[in-house]
Parts: sequence; structure tokens; C-alpha cells
Amino acid sequence: MRLGLLYSGGKDSTLAALLLAEFYDVTLATAHFGVTDDWKHARATARELDFPFERIELDCDVAREAADRIREDGFPRHGIEHVHRHALEAVAREGFDAVADGTRRDDRVPTVSRAQAQSLEDRHDVDYIAPLSGFGRSAVDDLVDAQLDVTVGPSAKITRADYEAELRALVADDGGAIEEYFPDHEQTHVTGVR
Amino acid sequence: MRLGLLYSGGKDSTLAALLLAEFYDVTLATAHFGVTDDWKHARATARELDFPFERIELDCDVAREAADRIREDGFPRHGIEHVHRHALEAVAREGFDAVADGTRRDDRVPTVSRAQAQSLEDRHDVDYIAPLSGFGRSAVDDLVDAQLDVTVGPSAKITRADYEAELRALVADDGGAIEEYFPDHEQTHVTGVR
Repeated sequence: MRLGLLYSGGKDSTLAALLLAEFYDVTLATAHFGVTDDWKHARATARELDFPFERIELDCDVAREAADRIREDGFPRHGIEHVHRHALEAVAREGFDAVADGTRRDDRVPTVSRAQAQSLEDRHDVDYIAPLSGFGRSAVDDLVDAQLDVTVGPSAKITRADYEAELRALVADDGGAIEEYFPDHEQTHVTGVR
Repeated sequence: MRLGLLYSGGKDSTLAALLLAEFYDVTLATAHFGVTDDWKHARATARELDFPFERIELDCDVAREAADRIREDGFPRHGIEHVHRHALEAVAREGFDAVADGTRRDDRVPTVSRAQAQSLEDRHDVDYIAPLSGFGRSAVDDLVDAQLDVTVGPSAKITRADYEAELRALVADDGGAIEEYFPDHEQTHVTGVR
């Protein structure tokens, strides 16, 4: 069965890929808006891990809507979820049997509700799978330590390879204060498998 | 890392075992009350799949409390969840690094809330993992078809190897009408891996 996994090059989506690879033909799919070249980090990691890679270009209107929303809200949650839903839809339209992402049990953003999952599945005749949604933070951390080589740092230095870094860039371009809207959290680049 | 997986011998918990085996040293742990010998089905499947097996005997008071609750409620949900929580606690006390079960995204019974998961983890210094909680029914069915040999039938004929069959027996012994309390759903015995 062919599965398209939304891939950022970070530890969560890489771990999701390893978990699913036992049962599916996994393609790592990085969604972006063509604003920066950060997606190339994800392609490099995908090659290192020997997974097929696809770049999914999203409509720039989605990015603008999300950036507007983030500025209005003063926090990124709804804007990021708006993009995440569009990204899942875009992967689903690629004709995979299943689509997946790396969301964890304790993630606050993005989340995909059971109703949203069911709706995606029904409309695209596809399975939606969140293989890490039954794993808490400490379980994921233990598995990452055991399985992956990673570079860790603050979001400003280690950029995500997917749409999130571009969203930050858009909000900043329009005069938004990034550190005000996006809480500083650590990002990871996976550099290899142990 | 050593992981104890609550195991019924059915398709969900078997699939959970295969998913986790990539990353953990998985022991299949079947919780029961010593009322019937159905746990031996789970041991047989564990041997067939070449996993270590442990039998976890639960306190009979827990079964009686659950049976009482089921008769009072007129439906099995809370009674089964009462036992499931006790079973997870019992596995956690065995000293594993992680405990797991086979609950799916679309399962209505038993469910383990995020708060319950966090509480179990904090009290026992253990990770709780529900590897199938990000998989819907159709994804699980597809994986079962691809990976497992199973015998399927109504609950009355194909008994679960864990506590649920014993709960039914207890409720019936006390004059409860099983078909009234337990909705008839299909059970599976896994007979092998493809």
C-alpha cells in the first residue's frame, strides 16, 4: 500500500516514517509555498534515510490567509492548522492509499480531530494515519535517542523544512514580530538513522 | 527498551505488537481473572508469533465491581474500562519501561484519555503507548488483511482470551442476559503472521 507522509525533516515525522515503513511503501512529502528553499533540507534527509521524496507546492493564497489569521489572533495555532489541513488535502489528491503526519499525543498544534480525519478519509477515499498520536513526549524522546541522529536548536536557527518556516517568514515580511506570535520552541533536523 | 502490551489474541493487539516490535522488546501480557482458561488462546498465538508471553492475574474484586457496574448501567462500557485501567496498572507494576494496548482511533470501549495516560505514566514512571490510536477502522482492516491470518466470528463463539470473556461469564452467572448488556460484535483470533 502506498502512503504519503507529510514530512518536515524533523524528529517526529522521521520517526513516523520509520514506524510506518514496516507496513507501507512510504513516500516523504514536504508541503511548502515556494517562498524559501528550506524544503531542500527535507529532501536531503529523505535521501539519507533512503525514502522516496515528493515536494508538494501549496497555493500561496493559503499562506496569506494563514498569515492574516495569525496576526489577527496573535497566536499561530489556527493559522498553522489551516495550512496543515490544506497540506493533508494536497497529499491525499496525489493518489496515495493512505496519508499520514507526525502529530504526537501531546502536540497542541497542529491537531487533527477524529471528525476531520473521517472527513478527509471519506472525501478522498484514503486512510488518514497519525502513527505517533498514541505516543507521549517522553516515549518519542526515548525513541529518537535510540534511533536517530539529530541537530537540535531554537526555531530561529534550525528552520523546519516545511510550510511552518515559510509562514514565519511571511508574517515577518508583513511587519509581524515573530517572537510575539510564535512561541520559541526547539526544532530538530534529522541527520541520519542509527 | 522493554514494553508490556495488553494482549487479547485478537487482531488489534496483534497488529500493535508487530508495529512496536520494530522499536521495543515486546512482551505480550494477557490479563485475566482465573475464571476461564481462555487466556491459553493468547499464549498459543504469542508462541506462534514468537513473542514472550506473560499471564497477569487480576484481583477478582475488580471483576465483581465491573460486573455489578455493567448490570447497573445496562451497558458494558464503564465496567470494561474499569477492568482495562486495572489491567494497565498491573502491567505497569511489572517493571516494563513502557506499557501499551491495542485501542484504535474509532474504538468506543475501552478508551484511555490523555489525562488517564499521563496519570499512569507519572505514577509508574513508565510510558503508555497506544500504537493504533492514530489508525482508523479501515486502515486497521487493510493491515490485518495484508499481515495476519485470522479466524473471525461473533463474540459468543470466538471468545477473547483476556478479561472480557470472563466478564461476560460473570455477568451471565449472576443471571444477566449477555446479549442485552454486550452488543454483539465480531471477535478475531489471530492464527498466524503472513
